[in-house]
Amino acid sequence: MHALVERLYPLCRSITGDGVRATLEIVGEYIPLKVHEVPTGTQVLDWTVPEEWNIRDAYIADLSGKRVVDFAASSLHVLGYSVPVSRTMPLAELRGHLHTLPDHPSWVPYRTSYYQPEWGFCLAQETLDALPDGEYEVRIDSTLADGHLTYAEHVVPGQVPDEVIVSCHVCHPSLANDNLAGIAVATFLARALAERTPYHTYRFIFAPGTIGAITWLARNAERIDRVKHGLVLACAGDRGSLTYKQSRRGDAEIDRVMRHVLAASERPHRVAEFTPYGYDERQFCSPGFDLGVGSLTRTPYAGYPEYHTSADNPAFVSPEAMADTLAVCREAFAVLDRNRRYLNLSPYGEPQLGRRGLYDSLGGRSDAKQAQMAMLWVLNLSDGEHSLLDVAERSGLPFDTVADAAGALHGAGLIKA
Amino acid sequence: MHALVERLYPLCRSITGDGVRATLEIVGEYIPLKVHEVPTGTQVLDWTVPEEWNIRDAYIADLSGKRVVDFAASSLHVLGYSVPVSRTMPLAELRGHLHTLPDHPSWVPYRTSYYQPEWGFCLAQETLDALPDGEYEVRIDSTLADGHLTYAEHVVPGQVPDEVIVSCHVCHPSLANDNLAGIAVATFLARALAERTPYHTYRFIFAPGTIGAITWLARNAERIDRVKHGLVLACAGDRGSLTYKQSRRGDAEIDRVMRHVLAASERPHRVAEFTPYGYDERQFCSPGFDLGVGSLTRTPYAGYPEYHTSADNPAFVSPEAMADTLAVCREAFAVLDRNRRYLNLSPYGEPQLGRRGLYDSLGGRSDAKQAQMAMLWVLNLSDGEHSLLDVAERSGLPFDTVADAAGALHGAGLIKA
Amino acid sequence: MHALVERLYPLCRSITGDGVRATLEIVGEYIPLKVHEVPTGTQVLDWTVPEEWNIRDAYIADLSGKRVVDFAASSLHVLGYSVPVSRTMPLAELRGHLHTLPDHPSWVPYRTSYYQPEWGFCLAQETLDALPDGEYEVRIDSTLADGHLTYAEHVVPGQVPDEVIVSCHVCHPSLANDNLAGIAVATFLARALAERTPYHTYRFIFAPGTIGAITWLARNAERIDRVKHGLVLACAGDRGSLTYKQSRRGDAEIDRVMRHVLAASERPHRVAEFTPYGYDERQFCSPGFDLGVGSLTRTPYAGYPEYHTSADNPAFVSPEAMADTLAVCREAFAVLDRNRRYLNLSPYGEPQLGRRGLYDSLGGRSDAKQAQMAMLWVLNLSDGEHSLLDVAERSGLPFDTVADAAGALHGAGLIKA
Repeated sequence: MHALVERLYPLCRSITGDGVRATLEIVGEYIPLKVHEVPTGTQVLDWTVPEEWNIRDAYIADLSGKRVVDFAASSLHVLGYSVPVSRTMPLAELRGHLHTLPDHPSWVPYRTSYYQPEWGFCLAQETLDALPDGEYEVRIDSTLADGHLTYAEHVVPGQVPDEVIVSCHVCHPSLANDNLAGIAVATFLARALAERTPYHTYRFIFAPGTIGAITWLARNAERIDRVKHGLVLACAGDRGSLTYKQSRRGDAEIDRVMRHVLAASERPHRVAEFTPYGYDERQFCSPGFDLGVGSLTRTPYAGYPEYHTSADNPAFVSPEAMADTLAVCREAFAVLDRNRRYLNLSPYGEPQLGRRGLYDSLGGRSDAKQAQMAMLWVLNLSDGEHSLLDVAERSGLPFDTVADAAGALHGAGLIKA
Repeated sequence: MHALVERLYPLCRSITGDGVRATLEIVGEYIPLKVHEVPTGTQVLDWTVPEEWNIRDAYIADLSGKRVVDFAASSLHVLGYSVPVSRTMPLAELRGHLHTLPDHPSWVPYRTSYYQPEWGFCLAQETLDALPDGEYEVRIDSTLADGHLTYAEHVVPGQVPDEVIVSCHVCHPSLANDNLAGIAVATFLARALAERTPYHTYRFIFAPGTIGAITWLARNAERIDRVKHGLVLACAGDRGSLTYKQSRRGDAEIDRVMRHVLAASERPHRVAEFTPYGYDERQFCSPGFDLGVGSLTRTPYAGYPEYHTSADNPAFVSPEAMADTLAVCREAFAVLDRNRRYLNLSPYGEPQLGRRGLYDSLGGRSDAKQAQMAMLWVLNLSDGEHSLLDVAERSGLPFDTVADAAGALHGAGLIKA
Repeated sequence: MHALVERLYPLCRSITGDGVRATLEIVGEYIPLKVHEVPTGTQVLDWTVPEEWNIRDAYIADLSGKRVVDFAASSLHVLGYSVPVSRTMPLAELRGHLHTLPDHPSWVPYRTSYYQPEWGFCLAQETLDALPDGEYEVRIDSTLADGHLTYAEHVVPGQVPDEVIVSCHVCHPSLANDNLAGIAVATFLARALAERTPYHTYRFIFAPGTIGAITWLARNAERIDRVKHGLVLACAGDRGSLTYKQSRRGDAEIDRVMRHVLAASERPHRVAEFTPYGYDERQFCSPGFDLGVGSLTRTPYAGYPEYHTSADNPAFVSPEAMADTLAVCREAFAVLDRNRRYLNLSPYGEPQLGRRGLYDSLGGRSDAKQAQMAMLWVLNLSDGEHSLLDVAERSGLPFDTVADAAGALHGAGLIKA
């Protein structure tokens, strides 16, 4: 995953343009992607797909021609969606277009102006401080023109058409944790899920933030009813502990599963309430959709000083952290895929388990007692109201033990799904 | 307010009689009152309006004619509703009619006997101790006769006919905190509310305790459905911190508003559960009515040693405390008047706020970020289920910020009431 | 009660057989019992009544004829439901049929094999250690044959046909706390309840564990709807504090009553969540029945080292502990029998209590104030939704005070049941 982050890092992504296409092409080497191109001007919910932005070169050069700020060195140097410019102007005038981080003088900030026509450069405060007064050549070789918004999907077909969506934003330029780590975890998660057919169908969405999610929602109105659960992946690779931000509903099944898995795994973690700010859970959890979609991050949105700066580089994300994020997703989806409600077909008194060989089957197991308790719990709570996760939480038994017990009882014809 | 307390203090009020009329006349100089006179014998719910009690003079005099206890000095000296008496008797016999406070030998207690024909005097223990044995002349020049029960209403008309009632008892004689302070706060609250037309219609009820509230309820059966919220004001001027006693329902809107305002204001305060004892919330919260009426006091009922004694005098109540009680009422009613449920008219995804100038409108504000968050919260929770108070509590934002955001969104046509 | 425990102790009980019959005969000397005999092979819910087991003698003897393990000394020495055996075999072979407790070398364990044909002996580890190698005569003079399962009922008729069941298992051989103490407490509880006609009808069930409860449930399908509450009594005599295990529902009336009584009594105690393991609450709380049946023990199931060993003898249970268990049952059933919902017939405002003499009636009582508060609380909450237990819990008043107040108000015609 870290290699993928490093490979994607130099590309200049934005909410539209060739940087997104190049990113999806590389991801497509790992998992097959269906790429969608949506024309400029398309109405998507309350929004309109904007002009496509592409950039070839940008720099500030002194009168000797030496580039003192160069887009080729980092895609962060240009204000996202900058209109083209080609002028010479004194530093005093140029300053109004320069963005720095005085508190972190060696870092370059990340700034955009999607919906207001502007241009600008981002640079280190110490670079700015070193510039002598005088005239500078400024040039941004960009185009803003009718084109397309690009996003992609990858589907892991499941046993049922009910869908789990996994979404990550692909619109940020050279920022590693936000969100190349999320893209990498999603990519490898898709591959892991495909190892054997999962219960749910898993749909991965790689789209620019906000406008991308809105575009997907606008174009998939008929599919929304099939989306039962979802997870927005972001900031998936820093060394902080995990944060799960709950869906707007707060008690959606994904919320309960994530809380259970994080608590049961004894990882340090935090469960946060929903807020209508953050990543694309904002759109999935808008009141008209109100989907059961939460968000998994390590250190959340804006919670670390490197956030939205050049310090969020590949060294900031760790392979171990990404592996851990991936592992939690797999554990959670394993629970989600096995979490069913059963009906006890012999609900009056306990059925005689011994007669059916259900005790014998446990003979050689060291956890036979626990497995037997799990069978009694599943029988007792399988009244159509309780899911296996309910059983696990009420009994205090591991989810897998409960699900195995349900499998044995189902095999013996004592419960039905 | 303190001047009003001092002016009302000498009057001898009871559940009927000229003391109540004189009190209402003085209050009527501040706000117009509609005075109601309900004849003795009128059936009111389970009760009957009693005979009217009036008193002109009362004293205990020694045989030299010197008044050792004199009603003219304090209205507390006579047992409320004392039947007339004019006799000479030895101190030994008189003692059976005397009430003192041995634990506070310099204080005169307040006692009544509304529904049992008795007579008596209240005096300081040290006065009693100083009386030589011997004969005393006792005289109570009172009348108990057919008459009326008197109460008054003042209405501040609102934008809607839905009513908030503010009730305070006017039946206690020379006791400042209980309840002249409540009367004074109610009077000035009515004036403040009238400064501009409030959303709700506010009805102030000045009536004797128990029988007065019961009389009002009996005579306003057709109006009860319009009473949406209410507050009983008592003990509004002592130097203790505020106590809000919740309605029987416990989750009525007035309960939530008072809890929110008290918590948000960071005043020291206490929220108490409903009990069927106290002031006229007993009647408003009887199970047949079960109105959303709570009670606001400073130190509550019987919670201070001066309660129902001559020590509850104008010096016991402070102008600052009354001003603070008034301020909390105004803050609470401001929330109550703005607390609406809206419906997001663009509930699928977030609407584009920038396009509508809703971000620009925040440009110059120091709290622009908070205002933007408030808009996102209002949009996200405006599903017809959540009130603005719900939004404020869930978001942790100040109610006014939330209500302002709702105003802006309403102005932009994004939500409707 | 302790005498009854001692008398029942030597009998060899099992899930069927003459030991159960002898036990019920002795209990029948205290309270009249209706004994039921259900033939082998009868289908009961998912189970079948097994063959009846009876045993006359059993021993291990050395070749000199000396009995080294003798059933006559303790009924625990034989594996319950042992098939007959009469052989001579070397100790090495015999060991496969011997059960000991190495951690408690002087104690004899209790073991059974109801549904798998086996034979075996239970003995002290130190007895086993003292046996020289060599040949031993082993003999179990038992029969497994068509017969009956035996259980008994005792009914204390109440004012209403709604039933409370009290169930205790009678299938354990010489174990005092588990469950002779439970049998003794149930027996004396039945006698105490009969002292005056209780409100509910109380049905006591003395039956073997699991198969007995299942048999009762199978044969009483038409009665189940009448069972409103129930209590399984077990481990009722050890010196530990009380544990109430809640019904599957967790908020059944018996759960609330037991929690209230245990908390109000200020006894040290524990309230445990339902689990589908333990005693016959497993059957009564299976999802098809889901009865409001909890379980009262002192130290619960398997919670003490003496559990299921020869150390659970009459010295292990104390008369005081049994008396305490009995007292709690009586207190709980007293609450259960008085816990009604009333309807305030004068719900608009407070009714005038003085006019009806309801204050006077309290004149001489030291707790007059509390009694008056109880009347106000009962009036305020008697809306058909709240039971007297709700009133007691919300008011913080003792249940009996509340129930007495309801009685007075009912007598005055102010509330109806």
